[in-house]
Amino acid sequence: MKKETYASSGVQIDKAESFVERLKLLARRPEHGQLWPAAGGYAAVYPFAPDLGIAVTTDGVGTKLLVAEALNKHDTIGIDLVAMCANDLVCVGAAPSLFLDYFAVGHLENQSADAIMKGIVEGCDQAGMILAGGETAELPGLYKPGHYDLAGFAVGHVTRDKLITGNKIKPGQKLVGVASSGIHSNGLSLARKVLPQEDKWLNLLLEPTLIYVKAVLAALSKHGDAISGICHITGGGWRNLLRLNKEAGFTVTSPLLVPEVFHKISEHVESEEMYKTFNMGMGLALIVEKEAELVADLFKEHGFSAAVVGETTDEFERIRIKGFDFVLKDKHS
Amino acid sequence: MKKETYASSGVQIDKAESFVERLKLLARRPEHGQLWPAAGGYAAVYPFAPDLGIAVTTDGVGTKLLVAEALNKHDTIGIDLVAMCANDLVCVGAAPSLFLDYFAVGHLENQSADAIMKGIVEGCDQAGMILAGGETAELPGLYKPGHYDLAGFAVGHVTRDKLITGNKIKPGQKLVGVASSGIHSNGLSLARKVLPQEDKWLNLLLEPTLIYVKAVLAALSKHGDAISGICHITGGGWRNLLRLNKEAGFTVTSPLLVPEVFHKISEHVESEEMYKTFNMGMGLALIVEKEAELVADLFKEHGFSAAVVGETTDEFERIRIKGFDFVLKDKHS
Repeated sequence: MKKETYASSGVQIDKAESFVERLKLLARRPEHGQLWPAAGGYAAVYPFAPDLGIAVTTDGVGTKLLVAEALNKHDTIGIDLVAMCANDLVCVGAAPSLFLDYFAVGHLENQSADAIMKGIVEGCDQAGMILAGGETAELPGLYKPGHYDLAGFAVGHVTRDKLITGNKIKPGQKLVGVASSGIHSNGLSLARKVLPQEDKWLNLLLEPTLIYVKAVLAALSKHGDAISGICHITGGGWRNLLRLNKEAGFTVTSPLLVPEVFHKISEHVESEEMYKTFNMGMGLALIVEKEAELVADLFKEHGFSAAVVGETTDEFERIRIKGFDFVLKDKHS
Repeated sequence: MKKETYASSGVQIDKAESFVERLKLLARRPEHGQLWPAAGGYAAVYPFAPDLGIAVTTDGVGTKLLVAEALNKHDTIGIDLVAMCANDLVCVGAAPSLFLDYFAVGHLENQSADAIMKGIVEGCDQAGMILAGGETAELPGLYKPGHYDLAGFAVGHVTRDKLITGNKIKPGQKLVGVASSGIHSNGLSLARKVLPQEDKWLNLLLEPTLIYVKAVLAALSKHGDAISGICHITGGGWRNLLRLNKEAGFTVTSPLLVPEVFHKISEHVESEEMYKTFNMGMGLALIVEKEAELVADLFKEHGFSAAVVGETTDEFERIRIKGFDFVLKDKHS
């Protein structure tokens, strides 16, 4: 009876993707040619000076908001918000600097609002960013009592020689996986649909997204020449690996531990759909030409579980995972 | 029977302001000292190079969203979104460059989504920005059918010598007012409460916010030395003038034409509350040391109505308006 999919949870993935494609056509301007090509589209990088790229990205936390609300626990969702943006910035090699938040609510409540902002500030501290601004919007009539939405906006900087484009990714390089804390901030609509509505599971879902920034910056500083790609595993699950370079495939032979929450979800969802939707225990992955064990060790020194989990292959645009028959392809397949 | 106020429309202004004050204390870090002091807090300006300040700001469009929904007309609300951010950037002297949007919806509908993005792209074109990225979030369970929220993030750049700090504002300078197109994107909750729910009024409310960017950049290029302050009239109405420099007051002797929509609203709202909430026909104001008529003329050449409307006074933190007995003070008074 494994029949649930991300689509069946109410999220229209195909519709969203075709919308984004139409939008790209509509928004395209000659000035887009000035943007530096950055790996996986994790951030847009614009050169404000000949050797200074400013990287920008925006994200939200999806329906993890509704988990915070169900538990009436709001002091970590801001960490997720910062994490979703800051982890994206480092994927192009940028050092996060500034964060801004948009916080919209039907009726401002001091206690939850303060808790939300406490999380955002905590996230900024973890990511080494300053909270440079924000907008608090009280929108009676748009949000139901207790409901709110959050959007984050992050700015970082990178020089041209440190920019990660993904072009250096070749078959035969190592894949270093860094553990997630659980579901992070993607696939929550599906998880909420299939998990029992019990505090145990809700609390596991609310576990804040890990912020990998400081460890990644240390790895780039120490092993930058060896790192050809960095992949924040977000919406689309492990298929995010395929964003970095079309001329590479992946084989994962020694995956990291899969957290309990995913085992429970997988009682209702096929394995392939799991890997297409969730991070499955790997919140970040790095593709490295050499020094793979040293890169993994450095993440461990920063308190993360990490290991060499596989390598790149010449089976372009395909991901194989040991123990499974399916082959993951890009989002449009 | 003029008894409605912005507060009575469900927006808790005092609560929002005390929240922002608490937030400032919570978020303050030594690194905030690196930000350049920019007039009125319209944008945060961070020096990514010794003479290159990157200006960032975020905003939404408030419950103007619900007007678009009521009329099922979604192709201009994106112009408002860009306007709210881009007009803020120019107030610190920054040239807008990049825009990112956050678009959250319960259930993605092609027609309205495409219309919304068409407006955002149109706004970016008007402001001379490129749409560098965005996030489209489908959040079933958070937004009711047909509901959506929008947040905008804008990035600009300014050199230190062109940064507008407000410090050059002195008593005896001229105030140049530039006309709004109507209510723009502030005070909608109050306007929606008191106006008849008729298409005529809803259409007037939906009139897109003017984007002053190109005219302001031309004025800064031609009369930059004469311009001591630029004020985007947003939430808080004309009190925004008092954000720029505490050591100045204002007297408005020849106000611009007040659009019909404000006359209708004022049947239910006292005059002082009107000027504390709405732009009252003046969407932007510039404080100029000299060449005031030339600055006004330049805006007219760009298609805006503009005129010298008053001047700065030594009655610090006070605004007097010809024909009214009240005196506007800062937001906390």
